[in-house]
Amino acid sequence: MKIGIYGYGNLGKGVESAIGQNPDCELFGVFTRRAPESLKINTPQAKVLPAQEVDKYVNDIDVLIICGGSATDLPEMTPRLAKSFNVVDSFDTHADIPTHFDRVDKSAKEGNTVALISCGWDPGMFSLNRVYMDAILPNGRDYTFWGKGVSQGHSDAIRRIKGVLDARQYTCPVQSAIDRVKSGECPDLTTREKHTRLCYVVVEEGADKERIEKEIVTMPKYFADYDTTVNFISQEELDRDHKGIPHGGTVIRTGKTGEGNNHVVEYRLTLDSNPEFTASVLLAYARAVYKMKKRGEVGCKTVLDIAPADLSMKSPEELRKHML
Amino acid sequence: MKIGIYGYGNLGKGVESAIGQNPDCELFGVFTRRAPESLKINTPQAKVLPAQEVDKYVNDIDVLIICGGSATDLPEMTPRLAKSFNVVDSFDTHADIPTHFDRVDKSAKEGNTVALISCGWDPGMFSLNRVYMDAILPNGRDYTFWGKGVSQGHSDAIRRIKGVLDARQYTCPVQSAIDRVKSGECPDLTTREKHTRLCYVVVEEGADKERIEKEIVTMPKYFADYDTTVNFISQEELDRDHKGIPHGGTVIRTGKTGEGNNHVVEYRLTLDSNPEFTASVLLAYARAVYKMKKRGEVGCKTVLDIAPADLSMKSPEELRKHML
Repeated sequence: MKIGIYGYGNLGKGVESAIGQNPDCELFGVFTRRAPESLKINTPQAKVLPAQEVDKYVNDIDVLIICGGSATDLPEMTPRLAKSFNVVDSFDTHADIPTHFDRVDKSAKEGNTVALISCGWDPGMFSLNRVYMDAILPNGRDYTFWGKGVSQGHSDAIRRIKGVLDARQYTCPVQSAIDRVKSGECPDLTTREKHTRLCYVVVEEGADKERIEKEIVTMPKYFADYDTTVNFISQEELDRDHKGIPHGGTVIRTGKTGEGNNHVVEYRLTLDSNPEFTASVLLAYARAVYKMKKRGEVGCKTVLDIAPADLSMKSPEELRKHML
Repeated sequence: MKIGIYGYGNLGKGVESAIGQNPDCELFGVFTRRAPESLKINTPQAKVLPAQEVDKYVNDIDVLIICGGSATDLPEMTPRLAKSFNVVDSFDTHADIPTHFDRVDKSAKEGNTVALISCGWDPGMFSLNRVYMDAILPNGRDYTFWGKGVSQGHSDAIRRIKGVLDARQYTCPVQSAIDRVKSGECPDLTTREKHTRLCYVVVEEGADKERIEKEIVTMPKYFADYDTTVNFISQEELDRDHKGIPHGGTVIRTGKTGEGNNHVVEYRLTLDSNPEFTASVLLAYARAVYKMKKRGEVGCKTVLDIAPADLSMKSPEELRKHML
C-alpha cells in the first residue's frame, strides 16, 4: 500500500513514523506547500514534492493522508483531493462534520474514490465507542472527559495576549466528576465541573502578570467557563518540563438493564504524543480505505462505517483464530 | 425487527428484557425444549413455542437469537438454524471458533441468511478492542484481565466435589499485574500472576472441610495454576451475599511510537449482570444482522466484520451529527 502524506507538520511526521511500523505500507512521498528543497524528511527513499503538483502522482499513491488543519485547510483540501485520490483526513470541528461530509461525498463519488473523514481519536476512536455503548445500553448516558493533555488552541490563545512570550495549556479532567459518573448516578455536569485548565506562561521582563492572569482566566469561550490556574515560569522551565504533546481522555457510559442492574463501560487513552497516536489511527484507517476501494466501494465514510477487521494487517482467518 | 429467542435460560431472559429497551425491536416468541405450557415469560403478547417447531415460523422472525450453551448446544444448533434463519449466537469456546465459523458459513450460504457467531463481550467487545488496538499500535502488546466476576464453570466444578452443597467462584484480576501492564513495561505474566480465584462454599454437616479445600485448590485446569482462597459459609450467607452474576474485565494495550513515546489504551467493563449485558450486546448485533440481510449480504460474520453504525437505532445522519 503506497501512502502519500499531504502536509508535513507534527501529524504528517507522525504518519511517516507510523509507516515504519507497518510492513504492508510504504511512503511514496510527502507533499508540501513549503519549498520542497527546504524540507528534510526521515525516509530516504521517499520524495518531497510540491503540493500543487500532487495530481501528477495519482497513479503512484493508493491512499493520500491529508495532514492539514481543520479551521481552513481541510474544508478546502479534502473535497478537492478526494476527486483524484483515496483520502483520509482528521477533520475535527464537530459542528461542521455534516457539511464537510456532504462536500467530500460529492467529490469522492465524482472521482470514484473512497474518502474517510474525521479520523483520529476524538472524533474517531471515542466516537465509535460512544456509538457501540449507546447501541448496547440504550437506557444510559455517556460522558467524555479529555486530558490530562495539551490543548494547542488554548496555548495559542494565551500566546496572543500582550506581554506573553510562550505558553502551554493543559486540559485536566476532574476526578471527582469521573467518580460520580462511574457510580451510575448519571449526574448533570456543567463545563466547570468536568474539566479544569492549567496554564504555564512565559512573559516579557517587567510584564504586568496580574493583568495577564486576569486576561487569561476571563477569556470568553476558552477559559471563562472553567476553573483556571495560571503559573508563570521561565522559558527554560517551559522547554524543560512542558515540551511534550501528551493527551488522552475517557469515554464512559453507564446504563441499566433488567431490574436495575448497572453496567459501566469505559474506554481510556493515555497518550505520550497526541499527534503520533492520531497519525497511527489515520494509517490504520488508510488500510481500511485501501481495502474498501479494492472491493469497489465509493464515497465518503467515517469510522462508524468501517468494520474493525478492515483496519488490520491480519487476514480474517488469523483474526478469528487468534484475536476473537 | 421481529426477534425470536431460542432457549430461555439467563441469557434468553436477558434478551427478552433488552428488547423492552429497544423500541425498534419486538419479541415474536420464545422457543423452548421444555414443555411450552410450563414456561412463563415476561412479554404477554409474545408466544412460547416448542423448539422443534421453529421452522414453521421462518416468515415471522427477522433474527433468531440462539441462547444455548457453547459446549454442546451451539455447535449443533447454529449450523442447523442458520439454514432457515438469520441468527446470532454467543459461541465462546475460543479454540473452536474457526471450525464453528466454517460450519455456520456453509449453512448460511446454503440458506441465503446472515449468521453472526461468537457475539457478547469476550469473545465480542473485547475481541474488537484487541483488533482496533493491534491495528493502531502494532509495536505493542495487549493483555486481557477478567473479573471480578462469577465463573459459572468453576462454581459448577466445586459443586461436583463430594460433600459440597453449593458454591460460588469469583475470578479476580491482580491489580499489581494491571499496574505493571499500564506502566508500559510489557511484562511476561504467568497465569498465577494475572488472576486469583476466590471461592465461597457451602458443605454438608460434618463434611471434611480440609479435604474439600485441598480438592479445590489442587484441581487441575480449574484451580491448580492459581492462588485460590476457599471460604466456607452457610447457604443463607451464600444466598444473601452471592446471588448476583457480576462480571467484567479489562483489555489493555500499550504500544510505542516515534522516539519511544508510550501509549496506553484501555477498555473496561464493570457489569452487575453478565447475562443481561451479554444479551444487550446480542440484541444490538441482531440489528446489524437485520441491516446486512436487507443489503443482500450472506454468510457467517463475527463482530470484527461489522461496522459500528450497523448496531445503532440512529440514522447515519444522526450519528454523524450527534455522536461523531
